[in-house]
Amino acid sequence: MSADTAKQKVYKPRPVTGFPEWLPEVRLVEQQWFDHIRRVFESYGFCSIETPSVEELDVLRAKGEVDKEIYVLERLHKDENDTSDARLALHFDQTVPLARYVAQNFNDLVFPFKRYQMQRVWRGERPQKGRFREFYQCDIDVIGVDALPIHFDAEMPAIMWEVMSGLPGMENEKIQMRISNRKILLGYLAALNIPTKDGSTTKLSEALKAQILREIDKLEKLGEAIVLSRIEESGLHDGLGFGLDGFIPPFLKICQTKFSNSSDLHEALTMSADIDTSNSMLREGIEELSFVLDALAHLPKGAVVADLSIVRGLDYYTGTVYETVFLEDPGYGSICSGGRYDDLAGSYINKHLPGVGISVGFSRLFARMVDQGKIDVSRKSPADVMVMMPHEDKRPAITQLCQKLRARGLRVEMFHAAKKFPDQLKYASRKGIPYVWITEEDGTYQVKNMLTSEQVKADPATWTPEGRKIDEAA
Amino acid sequence: MSADTAKQKVYKPRPVTGFPEWLPEVRLVEQQWFDHIRRVFESYGFCSIETPSVEELDVLRAKGEVDKEIYVLERLHKDENDTSDARLALHFDQTVPLARYVAQNFNDLVFPFKRYQMQRVWRGERPQKGRFREFYQCDIDVIGVDALPIHFDAEMPAIMWEVMSGLPGMENEKIQMRISNRKILLGYLAALNIPTKDGSTTKLSEALKAQILREIDKLEKLGEAIVLSRIEESGLHDGLGFGLDGFIPPFLKICQTKFSNSSDLHEALTMSADIDTSNSMLREGIEELSFVLDALAHLPKGAVVADLSIVRGLDYYTGTVYETVFLEDPGYGSICSGGRYDDLAGSYINKHLPGVGISVGFSRLFARMVDQGKIDVSRKSPADVMVMMPHEDKRPAITQLCQKLRARGLRVEMFHAAKKFPDQLKYASRKGIPYVWITEEDGTYQVKNMLTSEQVKADPATWTPEGRKIDEAA
Repeated sequence: MSADTAKQKVYKPRPVTGFPEWLPEVRLVEQQWFDHIRRVFESYGFCSIETPSVEELDVLRAKGEVDKEIYVLERLHKDENDTSDARLALHFDQTVPLARYVAQNFNDLVFPFKRYQMQRVWRGERPQKGRFREFYQCDIDVIGVDALPIHFDAEMPAIMWEVMSGLPGMENEKIQMRISNRKILLGYLAALNIPTKDGSTTKLSEALKAQILREIDKLEKLGEAIVLSRIEESGLHDGLGFGLDGFIPPFLKICQTKFSNSSDLHEALTMSADIDTSNSMLREGIEELSFVLDALAHLPKGAVVADLSIVRGLDYYTGTVYETVFLEDPGYGSICSGGRYDDLAGSYINKHLPGVGISVGFSRLFARMVDQGKIDVSRKSPADVMVMMPHEDKRPAITQLCQKLRARGLRVEMFHAAKKFPDQLKYASRKGIPYVWITEEDGTYQVKNMLTSEQVKADPATWTPEGRKIDEAA
Repeated sequence: MSADTAKQKVYKPRPVTGFPEWLPEVRLVEQQWFDHIRRVFESYGFCSIETPSVEELDVLRAKGEVDKEIYVLERLHKDENDTSDARLALHFDQTVPLARYVAQNFNDLVFPFKRYQMQRVWRGERPQKGRFREFYQCDIDVIGVDALPIHFDAEMPAIMWEVMSGLPGMENEKIQMRISNRKILLGYLAALNIPTKDGSTTKLSEALKAQILREIDKLEKLGEAIVLSRIEESGLHDGLGFGLDGFIPPFLKICQTKFSNSSDLHEALTMSADIDTSNSMLREGIEELSFVLDALAHLPKGAVVADLSIVRGLDYYTGTVYETVFLEDPGYGSICSGGRYDDLAGSYINKHLPGVGISVGFSRLFARMVDQGKIDVSRKSPADVMVMMPHEDKRPAITQLCQKLRARGLRVEMFHAAKKFPDQLKYASRKGIPYVWITEEDGTYQVKNMLTSEQVKADPATWTPEGRKIDEAA
């Protein structure tokens, strides 16, 4: 160490909580995850967009105050008199930016517009386990003009099933996608005629319906008895003298059932004397959800179920809604969610743009797999092979050899100095590079498999590492 | 349009200046650029890291005040009494985060540590042409402990040449990498003995040497005469009565020459009576720069030259320095720069970590190519093929067909509704999807090439679009 360095004042940085950062061996797998997700999204014809990290604060708040914690940007050396710039803030999801993007570029896009987006988003919340301040989301959305066929509602979970079941390290996780259609619940509640004290009947108020949805959303967490009593209480609070206990329980039973096919769902909803199927919204919901279930029948048993307790956000979704849980840890919350909305960008453009979208909470999911040790961290380098340096005189020949291997699409690290062979091997081993290339005295080559220590003759024109597909023309 | 939508208040968003955003057809090429760069970086064994978008402000300023405009984060609904959080700011480059990362993870990394990083960085500057407030940089650095072989200085430009010459759309751009070694200039200046009025001689002060470097940096822009007079003036200002005009001109001549091989460089520097080659720093610089030039001799003529007027930032680099310009527009400034530094992370850890790094100013470069119309924007979708929907009854069969093609690694968009064929073809054409798959009445298939209108029989098990390499096992 130079004297200069020793004298320098050292500021020892601490990790910033809520902002995940990975060692190279973990990052390598994170890249495999992104690659896999992108491959699946593109295989269905979704195009990528990226929006800036920031939006104008007024854009983020166009729909009214936002309940999420927003990070606003300030220039450190801002001239206090300079008010020319609009206030900028980091986006907290990818839906608001999508809406703004679609509104702004409406005439340049082809509809249905199918886009995927895999970016960081920011929320200034208190960090806690599984909650970050900066994290990746991977979203797909399809946006139509005036109308969007229901088949897209069915394509979304199929895509996400392919995504999640194919992520390296997730092979043995039991996950389940739960789908509902909010029209069923809303239609059922709209059809109810609640007797009043004066002998006539009344409809549920909008506020009470919303409250009941919120309570049903907690069904898995709180259980039937508590949810029912809370609904009961809300009813009384809303002025319903007779309460709701004669009306809600049959539906709550159905909400606690997971339907793996449309005929069971159909039967439960249409064969019950307690459910008034004359309501058109209810019938529409049943039809749509049945279509989606039927279209997903090819997925493994239990992968997708209809679950009428799934509600999601209250204001936004209007039809199909999705959630995804670890079957063995549903309390961890949803790792992949979304739904159908009627109007994406009404705050920014006078167009009616219905859509359906679904999003993987990437960082939440990935961090969990890392924490649980389910990620293969054996490689600290992308290199397929390390080429040893036998002697400084051989550098030009070794450089050429590396270029030959690279031209075949191989990832090649050339060892940087003619050190002793054991030192060179140790470096490859510490970096987790699976093969080492050795140049013999007579100019022939050997390749050592670092895992098995097996060593065989090799030809740079044909050698291929096991399990690595070579794109010869890369 | 629904009445609800029409009534909604519309906030028409404006583009936020300085934050680039692309339409899908441009983004598609941007992705190809990133893919290419990543492939090249990994082919040399560089691993990826990503750091958070933010650092603690104290980390960014550990070396002293920063001259770049920093964006600080503020929570919109911050509790004024809550001062528990450190002040966070968006990083303005990838070098400070790398230094912090290496210091923090020193014991978990294997050295030489070779990493690449392709992230957004932020600077709150006034936006102008080619200058953004949010932009991507693509960096590679190699960090050693206590020492780092010079051969890495030669590997950097080779990698970046491969990167830049292979970017789609850059094929016909004439670019040149210009390399120097600051030891040459500093050694030359250190060796000078300037006569004083009293008949003795004196050395140049550190301040004057720095000033001369700054002036030489402007040689291409201002020309020899102006630079010389400015140096002259600096000398007088520094108290040198006789000025510098007898000492600097021979060197300025050399600084205006581009050397494409080491022997010419050697000759110019060692055969001149005006240059005192007894200075060890000068000799070291010549040796290092010669090594780098020799190691790059395999690149096309003119790709790389030695150019002693290249200086780069003053405090940071200590040996090799790189710049890259468009030969036809050098005034645009450097698109790929970097150099050797003695001590990466001395502000954060008591270790001596020399390194060498180089960085592509991705967004600057990409935006220029987009502006100049050199980017192929014919495709708005990644789909290789769109499968037509002949009739709603055929949906299950068409869905299966799509899955079969996807399983072979193809990117397939299924048309969403059984519309008239011309409508379906128009959609594919507007999205720039190159092939359309047609199911005939008898269950056989045809593929239409949308560019040539040629239509041929096709087998889903074997059909491959032209120019697309299929990874059958994807």
